[in-house]
Amino acid sequence: MTLVAAIDRDPAEELVSKLCRVVAGFKLGIPLLLRYGAAYAHRLRKLCRDALWIADLKLADIGSTMVASVEPLLGAVDAFIAHAVVGVEGALDQLANTLEEHGTKLVLVVAMSHPGASSLYNKLVEDNIEVARRIRAWGVVAPATMPELVALVRSRLPEVKVFSPGVGAQGAKPGDALCAGADYEIVGRLITSSPDPLEVAKKVLAEQKKRLERCWKP
Amino acid sequence: MTLVAAIDRDPAEELVSKLCRVVAGFKLGIPLLLRYGAAYAHRLRKLCRDALWIADLKLADIGSTMVASVEPLLGAVDAFIAHAVVGVEGALDQLANTLEEHGTKLVLVVAMSHPGASSLYNKLVEDNIEVARRIRAWGVVAPATMPELVALVRSRLPEVKVFSPGVGAQGAKPGDALCAGADYEIVGRLITSSPDPLEVAKKVLAEQKKRLERCWKP
Repeated sequence: MTLVAAIDRDPAEELVSKLCRVVAGFKLGIPLLLRYGAAYAHRLRKLCRDALWIADLKLADIGSTMVASVEPLLGAVDAFIAHAVVGVEGALDQLANTLEEHGTKLVLVVAMSHPGASSLYNKLVEDNIEVARRIRAWGVVAPATMPELVALVRSRLPEVKVFSPGVGAQGAKPGDALCAGADYEIVGRLITSSPDPLEVAKKVLAEQKKRLERCWKP
Repeated sequence: MTLVAAIDRDPAEELVSKLCRVVAGFKLGIPLLLRYGAAYAHRLRKLCRDALWIADLKLADIGSTMVASVEPLLGAVDAFIAHAVVGVEGALDQLANTLEEHGTKLVLVVAMSHPGASSLYNKLVEDNIEVARRIRAWGVVAPATMPELVALVRSRLPEVKVFSPGVGAQGAKPGDALCAGADYEIVGRLITSSPDPLEVAKKVLAEQKKRLERCWKP
């Protein structure tokens, strides 16, 4: 399965129950987690226990604060997303150690999907990839809206899971990032804002499959 | 008043009540907000209504997600902290518009205080300062542990409030950042982990004052 649903809004419980059988996982966003607190993530998890659950805190702080931030969510999720750009010493080193102790995965943002990222954040993509390598991140986030960056990340980090947001509302088409080498496409509003989220999720999966059949041909 | 207390841990209500009369404001961190949810921030605010309240979400996401993240906290805080490094278009432009509509201030991290920041994040300090200027941020965050960066930010952005974390547990001394041009020093664990937070806060204020008297002399 190649689809991760980004759950940033209500009715989250309904969305999780509906999508459980068709998605690889769920990415829980800050808006929902802040509104309801960490206990809510533990409740949501029970609705689809075997999916890959990711807390998308986009952590970007000193080590002690990132460690304290993940604590209330340990056990509710399988992975946390942090920003590679904060660097290793005194920051991601401490987070990585804590997550490893708890058998929890680290996913690092190495490039972002919005237009303004190109002139600033994404200039650091090579440094960010190096951080992901040094810290042995399990996964990285690279934008479906910029498939050339997905391909770069894929070539530099062949063993790492690549997650690509930006499909749907931000403009990338289902399968674009998979063709460039991503393992999962993250889809939010296209699915969660739809009157029939399950139907849209199935349609995205079908489109991914169709696109993947074509992208490998010369 | 030149001291902002970083409240990241329990007993937050007791800390706020005790410190209310001596600090300029409170910075609420992600660990506490995640643990208890946004409603908790609204309750804390009532314990010291006239202080400057800052939600330190270290926002670093696309615009729509940052906007959705601040929504449950509007009214509880006067300002939000986001990362300049995510850039303007499709990110900070949308956040800045939303905050302006709600009469809420934007504070941007332009440089960070941990050792690993020097080799990555802080390389972008000039670009980050330019983002703060473009987006007309009310304030910026620059590290007390690296006073040369505080001085740089102060010289480039004379009208902007400069907040400096890193005092105490991270090694900077009270007054170091103020001497370099900061408006406020942010102090967390040194105060909040103490058995007598009020006494320590008063001591920090006294040390800041003493240091300020010396730093302006040649």
